[in-house]
Amino acid sequence: MLPTTEVPEAWFNVVPHLLEPPPPPLHPATREPVGPQDLAPLFPMALIGQEVSSEPWIDIPGPVLDVLRLWRPTPLVRARRLEQALDTPARIYFKDESVSPAGSHKPNTAVPQAYYNREAGVKRLATETGAGQWGSALAFACALFGIECKVYMVRASYLQKPYRQVMMQTWGSEVVASPVDQPDHPGSLGTAISDAVRDAVGREDTHYALGSVLNHVLLHQTVIGQEAKAQLRLAGEERPDLVIGCCGGGSNLGGLALPFVPDPAVELLAVEPSSCPTLTRGHYEYDFGDSAGMTPLLSMYTLGHDFVPPSIHAGGLRYHGDAPIISSLVRSGRMRAVAHPQTVVFEAAVQFARTQGTIPAPETAHAIRATIDAALEAKQAGRERVILFGYSGHGLLDLQAYADYLGGRLGDD
Amino acid sequence: MLPTTEVPEAWFNVVPHLLEPPPPPLHPATREPVGPQDLAPLFPMALIGQEVSSEPWIDIPGPVLDVLRLWRPTPLVRARRLEQALDTPARIYFKDESVSPAGSHKPNTAVPQAYYNREAGVKRLATETGAGQWGSALAFACALFGIECKVYMVRASYLQKPYRQVMMQTWGSEVVASPVDQPDHPGSLGTAISDAVRDAVGREDTHYALGSVLNHVLLHQTVIGQEAKAQLRLAGEERPDLVIGCCGGGSNLGGLALPFVPDPAVELLAVEPSSCPTLTRGHYEYDFGDSAGMTPLLSMYTLGHDFVPPSIHAGGLRYHGDAPIISSLVRSGRMRAVAHPQTVVFEAAVQFARTQGTIPAPETAHAIRATIDAALEAKQAGRERVILFGYSGHGLLDLQAYADYLGGRLGDD
Repeated sequence: MLPTTEVPEAWFNVVPHLLEPPPPPLHPATREPVGPQDLAPLFPMALIGQEVSSEPWIDIPGPVLDVLRLWRPTPLVRARRLEQALDTPARIYFKDESVSPAGSHKPNTAVPQAYYNREAGVKRLATETGAGQWGSALAFACALFGIECKVYMVRASYLQKPYRQVMMQTWGSEVVASPVDQPDHPGSLGTAISDAVRDAVGREDTHYALGSVLNHVLLHQTVIGQEAKAQLRLAGEERPDLVIGCCGGGSNLGGLALPFVPDPAVELLAVEPSSCPTLTRGHYEYDFGDSAGMTPLLSMYTLGHDFVPPSIHAGGLRYHGDAPIISSLVRSGRMRAVAHPQTVVFEAAVQFARTQGTIPAPETAHAIRATIDAALEAKQAGRERVILFGYSGHGLLDLQAYADYLGGRLGDD
Repeated sequence: MLPTTEVPEAWFNVVPHLLEPPPPPLHPATREPVGPQDLAPLFPMALIGQEVSSEPWIDIPGPVLDVLRLWRPTPLVRARRLEQALDTPARIYFKDESVSPAGSHKPNTAVPQAYYNREAGVKRLATETGAGQWGSALAFACALFGIECKVYMVRASYLQKPYRQVMMQTWGSEVVASPVDQPDHPGSLGTAISDAVRDAVGREDTHYALGSVLNHVLLHQTVIGQEAKAQLRLAGEERPDLVIGCCGGGSNLGGLALPFVPDPAVELLAVEPSSCPTLTRGHYEYDFGDSAGMTPLLSMYTLGHDFVPPSIHAGGLRYHGDAPIISSLVRSGRMRAVAHPQTVVFEAAVQFARTQGTIPAPETAHAIRATIDAALEAKQAGRERVILFGYSGHGLLDLQAYADYLGGRLGDD
């Protein structure tokens, strides 16, 4: 473990640093750029302002910092045992976001979203969740700010992961399976977003909250990369040569990588599942964020808003599109992307557990796969490299996936 | 969160500080004090030496420190949100042992036990586990030191907690249900200890490892209390007025409380379940550690080695006896004990989750119940008090218990 730094007091806005700022969201009916009033039924003005801001830094409110400090700064850890097992000259560091109450990076944005909504007088939030990480995070944040919360959970996960439901209920949230009107449908993030948006639009006291993709969500996550940067310096590293994160919607990857965008010497790598290969095989175009076509159109790499990915265990990576900011970085060549099938991903996860000791989330294991590959390349090339990867969450609520892998029951999709 | 200190480089031995040192273990057949050779089939000499040592400090070997530093020092956290919710003048601190790879304090002793066995050339360890915390911790430690591990898991837990099994398997251990020869028996810690001891005695390459009760186990856990003491000082507190820990076998409680024993101004409190009330309703006498009567006789508070407690959710607190060191402290009046039924314990756990954010293990929730009670007493008395409690583990693999509580299906036993 490394010396800790302070929690940053401002979020880092990458937009002024992008070669190609993401094109604006379009209204789903008119296909004209959306204005603040179009978004007002869903989000408080403070978040709408952050969504379109080009200010380089945005102050984090004191009451948000007070909550983030319950678990932040998170540890930056040098993975010495993994280095030794790989016999690599690379120095491997990971930023451990699994220490949050909900077990992932998601509370970094759940907390400010709950806070700004409460400040705007909103009494209730509706949201979707896939694997359950985001729903858990928002349930936690709403408990601390005294807001009601209703979570529409992708039905397949709802049925497979009853303990994720219990977690959200323990924090006082209501959880239902999505799509609510088709009890035989397994659901997708797209259907669950549609359900949650419909709920929020239909009730005066209710707003909507999204756990990834949007600019303000990635903005809130930049505490991760800012802390990592300061901690690496305290550890005597000038900079990482390579920053690696798993990518579903892009909030974990963005949170870690965006603060490094202005430094061209730092290589950035997105890792996605082969079965939902948005960045490596998707098209860059305007598409809806949800399956029903209710959200604004976003400019992004997408497999199509009606794409239903296979039910791989890394539920948090099963989104049909990517954050416009991440898409812009990949399109401009500033960030690379690779895709891996889940069998080699779990092989890396088990190797990590048996060397470093902790059991990663299946999503996180994608970053570990790419890290091990990069460390082995460095070994072949006889080259010192500093690799930083995002340990986005723990796998303690995903142990069925490990059982399937260890039992030889895991396919590549 | 509070400033961290260094990981202690020696274990604190409380034995020289006890008013009544615990009477020696007796041989199960001869009822004479056991000698080192009697224990040699089970433990390496280094641990046997620690078991009977009266040295005030025992150095922690470097390779053990290297592993402990993967997650230590653990955070000492001021529970400000809980204080505010209770509107108490008490200052509440907790020492968070849930951040270890296995999710509890148990790795603090699993790591040195695996290390000393490997140093002695032992290739394989056998152990028992109840709720699974200890088995997980030893599986983790054995993975890091390259030792095989076989875990005999109380059958009731084996059937109720398949994910605990997966965790141990992920670290490479073998897990079987106990008692192995009675497939219809629900098992108890006593039967599982018998199975594991029988395994170790029957194989030349195998030793036995115990996760609580014995002197060397409590010794290894004293890193907890030593760190807490230093962290409290860094936070500006001279000492805690009251130290609270849940007590099954006594290793969590001992680890936190023993370093405070020499300071008579610090009050010590053990919290146990009403359904397994060893310290509050047991007899102080020599009894076996296991149900089959294979272990040495220990001088302790006991409900009888054939006592089978109701299957409450805090599986880690369902042991029929207590550590001889803890028993000695209670008998001499240096430590108090209280018992609580599990309904009020889960009420405290949910209050904690909704204020501080994290979901505690059912065992830990016993300490939280007593902490809330003490904080409310301080409020009634209008008295500032510094309360330190042990957050021994997280509840992420115990969510069924929360589902039962929230669903109104939880009885007091």
